[in-house]
Amino acid sequence: MAHPAGSAPRAQVVIIGCGFGGLEATKALCDAPVDITLVDRTNHHLFQPLLYQVATAGLSAPAIAAPVRHLFRKQANVTSLLAEVASIDPVQRVVHTTDDGTLPYDHLIVAAGATHSYFGRDEWARFAPGLKTLDDAFEIRRRVLLAFESAEKERDPQRRADWLTFVVIGGGPTGVEMAGTLAEIARQTLPGEFRRIDPAQARILLLEGSPRVLQAMPEDLSEKAARQLRKLGVEVRTGSRVTSIDAHGLDVTPAEGAPYRLASRCVIWAAGVAASPLGRRLAEATGAQVDRAGRVTVEPDLSLPGHPEISVVGDLAAARSHVPGKEPAPVPGVSPAAKQMGRAAATNIVRRLRGEPTEPFRYRDYGNLATIGRNAGVVDLTTPFGRVKFSGYPAWLFWLFAHVYFLIGFRNRIVVLFDWASAYWSRQRYARVVTDIEPAPTDG
Amino acid sequence: MAHPAGSAPRAQVVIIGCGFGGLEATKALCDAPVDITLVDRTNHHLFQPLLYQVATAGLSAPAIAAPVRHLFRKQANVTSLLAEVASIDPVQRVVHTTDDGTLPYDHLIVAAGATHSYFGRDEWARFAPGLKTLDDAFEIRRRVLLAFESAEKERDPQRRADWLTFVVIGGGPTGVEMAGTLAEIARQTLPGEFRRIDPAQARILLLEGSPRVLQAMPEDLSEKAARQLRKLGVEVRTGSRVTSIDAHGLDVTPAEGAPYRLASRCVIWAAGVAASPLGRRLAEATGAQVDRAGRVTVEPDLSLPGHPEISVVGDLAAARSHVPGKEPAPVPGVSPAAKQMGRAAATNIVRRLRGEPTEPFRYRDYGNLATIGRNAGVVDLTTPFGRVKFSGYPAWLFWLFAHVYFLIGFRNRIVVLFDWASAYWSRQRYARVVTDIEPAPTDG
Repeated sequence: MAHPAGSAPRAQVVIIGCGFGGLEATKALCDAPVDITLVDRTNHHLFQPLLYQVATAGLSAPAIAAPVRHLFRKQANVTSLLAEVASIDPVQRVVHTTDDGTLPYDHLIVAAGATHSYFGRDEWARFAPGLKTLDDAFEIRRRVLLAFESAEKERDPQRRADWLTFVVIGGGPTGVEMAGTLAEIARQTLPGEFRRIDPAQARILLLEGSPRVLQAMPEDLSEKAARQLRKLGVEVRTGSRVTSIDAHGLDVTPAEGAPYRLASRCVIWAAGVAASPLGRRLAEATGAQVDRAGRVTVEPDLSLPGHPEISVVGDLAAARSHVPGKEPAPVPGVSPAAKQMGRAAATNIVRRLRGEPTEPFRYRDYGNLATIGRNAGVVDLTTPFGRVKFSGYPAWLFWLFAHVYFLIGFRNRIVVLFDWASAYWSRQRYARVVTDIEPAPTDG
Repeated sequence: MAHPAGSAPRAQVVIIGCGFGGLEATKALCDAPVDITLVDRTNHHLFQPLLYQVATAGLSAPAIAAPVRHLFRKQANVTSLLAEVASIDPVQRVVHTTDDGTLPYDHLIVAAGATHSYFGRDEWARFAPGLKTLDDAFEIRRRVLLAFESAEKERDPQRRADWLTFVVIGGGPTGVEMAGTLAEIARQTLPGEFRRIDPAQARILLLEGSPRVLQAMPEDLSEKAARQLRKLGVEVRTGSRVTSIDAHGLDVTPAEGAPYRLASRCVIWAAGVAASPLGRRLAEATGAQVDRAGRVTVEPDLSLPGHPEISVVGDLAAARSHVPGKEPAPVPGVSPAAKQMGRAAATNIVRRLRGEPTEPFRYRDYGNLATIGRNAGVVDLTTPFGRVKFSGYPAWLFWLFAHVYFLIGFRNRIVVLFDWASAYWSRQRYARVVTDIEPAPTDG
């Protein structure tokens, strides 16, 4: 933006990434005397907590994706740019994009987020897609729906059973939500639509390496979640490590007993996340540290050591929460934390512009929630009056309204509520659209 | 389906294609003593008249696509199969699918539809995508939205202007609807969202080879449609033939004056349709004739000469309408005709099962309608009281309700109405999601 003749040039802020962290940082700089360039490699902000609904055909993509440009149309100090960042030059203070664009900055907020990690076994990606982007969600939707179609066409009983075995790897919130929803699709949505198979016979397995699902939750809620999953017909197997995956199934080593083979044609990866590779490149350029997950270790105020003009927020940051009188505690990789970090980094930019000292980041934990299908969930809230835990139907309702409330945009909220109301009453999932019926990859 | 012990084996009907023709034929055989196998290479029935709305980000894909399996879940004599047909063997009376399936039939209805045709210039497809499938719609949506994004990044004024020049080739209903909607996106949806370009400066051109747009309409309505398009800011160029297309634009030969070059980075093909290649293969196997567009010439009752057990319906058929006392007239390639043919072919199967003679097909023409953006349209109705023509806002309203009425499924109707109401009041288009930002193909 041009600045009024005669006034001092406005500080240039570049924000990389329009997830929860970048979005909140941009909003928080609304009235600041800065020009913001918001760079993202997609044209939309994605409401990731509901991505599993797109993957399981409950929602269409536009219901959870808002065009970035449209979100900031009225915030005049924002220029939105669809581009991929190639590198950051902390000496020249410029960001280079892959299409030869160069963005100079006075302040930089890096909120490039995370992707899924196969713990060094990237060859598993073809056989067990993860869930981070809309394309990931379409791929999982395609595989799930085509598995039932292939089973209907298959005449060999063993191969038919393989098509009807769904394995979700990873018992975090995404894995639990995916497994619960798959069980509902098999038991409630599809029965009556096939003539040769009974979709209700499908097996859904949830494998988790640690001793319990939803590790971020208190133990009793993990137990309740596992029980609710089993009630839906999910085989929950904790303490089960996956040692290999191929086109026809996977090998599992349980905590007790002998390793075994699971035949399956549809495996979904919900196990690991790794920070965006941009983190490592940024660390190399600035001398910052990265942790094992590739997250950049930041100062208490979320800036980089020796580079107060660069902040890293969200899933890309290895940050700590600073509460006076307490030991700094690691900040979890959840969306409320990303939002709070985005706001904190923006506020610190404003403080620096005013010549004030920055403030250390303090994470306010309001709790944790997860849903398990249409009617069940677990909630663990931290309120001013203490901790509140509940599960079952009230937890599901709470989860639903919390998610709809935080959805970006009035319109999306109504659409999602309508979709869910109609799915709830009809037990149907309306986004069952597959455009590419190529079969899943084989070993050959 | 198994048949009750002791009863005669039920006749096997195979229906290829689940567009309007195949869908209506399947429904019409609901109570017939037949087992139906409905084969389609997608898993959904697509409401094609609204496909341009998906291409222009006004609707999400699931809003106009209904899972075939779900549509026929309660019609017990239908087995739905997701498969591509490789060939038809009229001697053995079997259909072969590409995944080695074999479907024996006593009666066959071929409703494989049409695709777009580049009049032998298939190399144009990369530069000017057509609009027949959901994937086509996503590709056009991607190109349109990315053209504005690229213009925002482009600093050279000429290249920027090229990105902001949109050319629609073909002035039929799809071309008219696309051009009108593109003009609205440029003039009403996007302004205010960009910082370096003014989207309202975009040029939208509609090229038509013949002397007028909407040739199936009476001349005065064509004239009104062209006027309404011009009011929206579309440059309507009739009598303009395209002689070549590449990554940077196209060459045009006008009816009068010298040929010229149009620089454009986003060209959309709405000019030609050709019957599915299955028609030609079927004709070769049965000795039937195909016309220039690849459509199979059928008998008055829609069956093939010498093959009363095979019917061809919809866009794949070169059919004639038989009204007593009149010359047989060609049936147009529109969705009401496809539906009527589907029903007629089904009824003739029932007649043959009863040993009754089949009946010639009679097309009932209820008229023609097209829309031009948010508030305008043209309608030409054939009613029992004579012909009714109107245009402008009432035509748009009529078009809207007619389309919503014919949409498959109660849920889809509500969703589409809601999407349109919100688009109408906000002038926004909510499905502005692009997942792949690779640039459009270049010559290199």
